Amino acid sequence: MRIVVCCTGMKAAPWVAGLEAALPGAVVEEWQAGAPPADHAVVWAPPQQLFDEQPRLKGIFNMGAGVDALLQLRLPPEAALVRLDDAGMSVQMAEFVCHALIRHFRELDGYEQDAAQGRWSFRRPRSRAEFPVGVMGLGVLGQRVAQAVAAFEFPVRGWSRTARAIEGVQCFAGPAQFDAFLAGTRVLVNLLPLTPETENIMNRATLGRLLPGGYVINVARGAHLVDEDLLALVDGGHLAGAALDVFRTEPLPPAHPFWRHPKITVTPHTSARTLRDESIAQIARKVRAFDRGEPVAGVVDLSRGY
Amino acid sequence: MRIVVCCTGMKAAPWVAGLEAALPGAVVEEWQAGAPPADHAVVWAPPQQLFDEQPRLKGIFNMGAGVDALLQLRLPPEAALVRLDDAGMSVQMAEFVCHALIRHFRELDGYEQDAAQGRWSFRRPRSRAEFPVGVMGLGVLGQRVAQAVAAFEFPVRGWSRTARAIEGVQCFAGPAQFDAFLAGTRVLVNLLPLTPETENIMNRATLGRLLPGGYVINVARGAHLVDEDLLALVDGGHLAGAALDVFRTEPLPPAHPFWRHPKITVTPHTSARTLRDESIAQIARKVRAFDRGEPVAGVVDLSRGY
Repeated sequence: MRIVVCCTGMKAAPWVAGLEAALPGAVVEEWQAGAPPADHAVVWAPPQQLFDEQPRLKGIFNMGAGVDALLQLRLPPEAALVRLDDAGMSVQMAEFVCHALIRHFRELDGYEQDAAQGRWSFRRPRSRAEFPVGVMGLGVLGQRVAQAVAAFEFPVRGWSRTARAIEGVQCFAGPAQFDAFLAGTRVLVNLLPLTPETENIMNRATLGRLLPGGYVINVARGAHLVDEDLLALVDGGHLAGAALDVFRTEPLPPAHPFWRHPKITVTPHTSARTLRDESIAQIARKVRAFDRGEPVAGVVDLSRGY
Repeated sequence: MRIVVCCTGMKAAPWVAGLEAALPGAVVEEWQAGAPPADHAVVWAPPQQLFDEQPRLKGIFNMGAGVDALLQLRLPPEAALVRLDDAGMSVQMAEFVCHALIRHFRELDGYEQDAAQGRWSFRRPRSRAEFPVGVMGLGVLGQRVAQAVAAFEFPVRGWSRTARAIEGVQCFAGPAQFDAFLAGTRVLVNLLPLTPETENIMNRATLGRLLPGGYVINVARGAHLVDEDLLALVDGGHLAGAALDVFRTEPLPPAHPFWRHPKITVTPHTSARTLRDESIAQIARKVRAFDRGEPVAGVVDLSRGY
């Protein structure tokens, strides 16, 4: 078996060494133009040229959960596209979202500003019954986040394309129930895959339906959010603010108003980082299962886009 | 039944009204000097005079979990002292501690500083295996905190006076196992009651035993911590910092070095606030059970001090 590794913006050598160790007998090498035909490619943000030169790939294993960028490329028609389904990402996502939620709900950002001025002052505790949290996207990451939030006794709602049943989560599904989902949500957490149907899904109309004092936590893709609409609703007072980890252009351009907005927290797409060791182990398991013809979790349905 | 309410620093009227509604038939009134003898007192930081004037109290119900300040007073010898055992405090405590832990572990404070300067930059993800969290005090609050931390997949250790068994928590007990507990702990969370045995328990010797890069989260009482020792260990580099919610003197005096230390986060004793509605409901339940001679949770053992 021959595997090529191609990861833009990351060092390939540790991935090559790790996959080689995890897949005895496989030839693993960093992809270069003109490389001999491989069975599988392990990729992060690869160039079109890789796929043009490797039309007989059987498996394309993405080093992350989101495959929206890959789906912009022309992929070999026979290749299965496989994404990471967890690999240490869901716990990071739960951490990141809970931190942002608690910080906002408990006003710990405000307390920190008080402390910077040496001010000892109380804020009136808020009722968590008034902070229903709505999670959009109920895949592996969304379910983990919804359950983590529920453990802190917030009312939790979830919305997904197809109907789900998750203990402790009030589930809504499909376009027909989207308005009802939004209308009872105060803190909106986005974990949707980016597809033509979900692009710009957070806009003036949808965010305007959130409960007054709404708050947006976007940890999926920047293109889910219409930046100007969020700013207008925050500045108009309907929304209390946002914690944004992903952006339409990354790195977020220096002149973008999100950087300096007092009610918007910016982080550099760090909510759930690809952890190398966990990812290598998971990709190796997927490759072995794939080659044995066993079912593999995370095979992307190209028609729905995730 | 006659109940007096005495809560320094809080408005008594809503407590009086709430208890009256929850305990039909009881006479509930705000305590004043010279008030007629009552059966029970519901108190927060009351003056000695209350107890001097009411020697026949049967029950003293504290509006919080910590009774160390009450135990400095001379209490009527026949009275049972009863503390709140949860009343919405444990979920707040879990929230507060998880926020502080995640913020430190994920370096979200550092990311925020980067963002304030418009800087998009990554930090290398840290391994949670290298961040064992040790919880001192495994009562209602400590157990809830330990379980919340374990849900984020940190290794969790616990230490208490008497041996406990908690799923997912490596438990240590008593003075004999204290050093072993500390030596494997990186993030130390303090939820102990304040007693003569636990005063100054966090000092240069004990904090010096934590793993390098240790971090202290104190949400119990300020007198558990020797301030200068913490500062010396942080400035010396053995400790990475601290999140402190409680202080030897509250409000924290303006000149105290904690206020402006870049590695120390100060909050104004807000980690778990007494929530009035939940507390009234719980105190009313305790009063009814007490008067029927049923067992009441949270009766303080005066010899051990909690």
